[in-house]
Amino acid sequence: MSADEFEIIRSLFAPLATSAGARGLTDDAAILDGAGATVVTTDALVEGVHFLADDPLDTVAMKALRVNVSDLIGKGARPESALLTLVWPQSRPASEIALFADGLKRDLQLFGMTLLGGDTTSTPGPLTVSITAFGTPLGPRTPSRADAQIGDDVWLVGGEIGSAWMGLQLRTGRMALSELRRERDEEAALRDSRAMRDAMPDYLTLKGEDFDAEAAWLMTTYLAPFVRTEAAAIVSRYANASMDVSDGLVGDAAKLAAASGVAIKIEANAIPFSIPAERWAFSGGDFRKLITGGDDYVVLFTAPDAKREALLGMDLDHSLRLTRIGRVETGEGVAVLDRSGKPLPIEAESYCHKLGR
Amino acid sequence: MSADEFEIIRSLFAPLATSAGARGLTDDAAILDGAGATVVTTDALVEGVHFLADDPLDTVAMKALRVNVSDLIGKGARPESALLTLVWPQSRPASEIALFADGLKRDLQLFGMTLLGGDTTSTPGPLTVSITAFGTPLGPRTPSRADAQIGDDVWLVGGEIGSAWMGLQLRTGRMALSELRRERDEEAALRDSRAMRDAMPDYLTLKGEDFDAEAAWLMTTYLAPFVRTEAAAIVSRYANASMDVSDGLVGDAAKLAAASGVAIKIEANAIPFSIPAERWAFSGGDFRKLITGGDDYVVLFTAPDAKREALLGMDLDHSLRLTRIGRVETGEGVAVLDRSGKPLPIEAESYCHKLGR
Repeated sequence: MSADEFEIIRSLFAPLATSAGARGLTDDAAILDGAGATVVTTDALVEGVHFLADDPLDTVAMKALRVNVSDLIGKGARPESALLTLVWPQSRPASEIALFADGLKRDLQLFGMTLLGGDTTSTPGPLTVSITAFGTPLGPRTPSRADAQIGDDVWLVGGEIGSAWMGLQLRTGRMALSELRRERDEEAALRDSRAMRDAMPDYLTLKGEDFDAEAAWLMTTYLAPFVRTEAAAIVSRYANASMDVSDGLVGDAAKLAAASGVAIKIEANAIPFSIPAERWAFSGGDFRKLITGGDDYVVLFTAPDAKREALLGMDLDHSLRLTRIGRVETGEGVAVLDRSGKPLPIEAESYCHKLGR
Repeated sequence: MSADEFEIIRSLFAPLATSAGARGLTDDAAILDGAGATVVTTDALVEGVHFLADDPLDTVAMKALRVNVSDLIGKGARPESALLTLVWPQSRPASEIALFADGLKRDLQLFGMTLLGGDTTSTPGPLTVSITAFGTPLGPRTPSRADAQIGDDVWLVGGEIGSAWMGLQLRTGRMALSELRRERDEEAALRDSRAMRDAMPDYLTLKGEDFDAEAAWLMTTYLAPFVRTEAAAIVSRYANASMDVSDGLVGDAAKLAAASGVAIKIEANAIPFSIPAERWAFSGGDFRKLITGGDDYVVLFTAPDAKREALLGMDLDHSLRLTRIGRVETGEGVAVLDRSGKPLPIEAESYCHKLGR
């Protein structure tokens, strides 16, 4: 479906969202009315749309949980529990569910969550995994997309931009390993990779090419994003507006700007990229793909500039990749600025057919 | 998937359900920890499994909500809000979502519920609708399946058994209208039907046969079950064990018996059937199909026999179809007894491929 069609859908369902906690269906999560302080979010993954048919089922389970955990982090909430709806293809052996359950189990333990219930049914169609996740806000406020203030700094926290997009390209063969190795010390790359190869599962090796450690890392990022629950405390304490970046930095920043009625200016050279992504972009790759590609699952938030020093103190070792990338101004839309402050020509894009990009 | 496969799945996921509120994944709903008194349930419908591709989309939305409302009623809870995950086929025009939204809207109003949020995504497969519903318990207890006591009466409340199964047979052409009209005053049937025909939507008419009022009523029951939220108060006040009947009376009673570690004896002649179902069974139809068929969405509960009079007083006009159908004894399993008290030969059946039966 196109972005327009999704807007039509929102307009059809929004009038049914009559409680304050539903936030008019414009936010990434809802506040459960009459249930104390509980944040709830739901996201579904469909085989062939959000993941590939041959993605390993443990990472599919992990991704299904993490995209929801990412929403909770973006609202400054600690993940607590989840409901799982597993729509299982009639053509897949039920025995494969064990691998799925294994991945889910590891991740529930990782995040300190419990499985609360769910539903399992069969389908003549693709594997579909719908998870509803519940969290507890770490502070009195649950920041929405709509609370950005003029003069706020714009921040990212929790990871780098574009790595998952590169991982998907590598995994689908749309990006060749040679593209990744451009401008790179061939010898060192091979040495690094040989040391890691044996420890890697088969699905992280590229078909017909040598194993590459960086490619494996990028593909891992695509398969199961590294969401950081520690970032929730930062969001809860400092964010005015906040949301997770799932459909591409530029498109999601545009959503936040629209919801808040502001303009967002992002400095291109401040955006945190991974080392292979940066090298790829500098050696001829189109960096705009990195910032519109999606699947990043990091948090985008705004905070008063008076909090800048305090914020930087929250991630002194930069393990959470807390990075100030821009500012909130009057106006509308998103601009990505080059070193001289000129807007780069970028279409704000956000896709729903995720694997189609 | 077979019942065995579902048991395997349960055994894989049950260890992940570490909170008390999850009830070891053995119940129809969970209690949301740390969220005050909130009951949560989730059920998904898949095109070609739980509904037909040409079922009208407003009734698909209604059914998707009602199967969840039915779970809440079975736990003695008042429905409050819902999350909707709509997995929309790439091949269906997005414009059809308006009809879906229309049905959902009417039903949310009917039940006094609000839409809290959700997710919409596309799929190369069949339409899949997953709803998570939240409710408030009407009393201090949320009865589970496991609380039946020896000596309890067994009750049904909220509707009749087998009507939805007959509606599905009629709608799919597996049952001919002539079967329904056996032993029936042909003249009166035609007269009744002519009077109703013009008021009925097209999808309730049988292909190649005359419109029939009873058939239309049965098909309506299949398309969107008549769940009765008033029954929640009865469950909350009187039930020891309780669950909704969705996969056939006998199979679901067997689940309740197993969870409680008891035997359930049901008197066949006490089971509430609709008039057309009763006539069909008496004129040669196999009444065992009615009690194993499914899609009834009524509530099965047990209550102390000392409460029998008080319970009957809760439904003096029988509008809630509150009916005592049996008793809880020591032992295990379910037996359906004939007028002389002898067990009828019935396999306890419960299907997951719902339309396959």
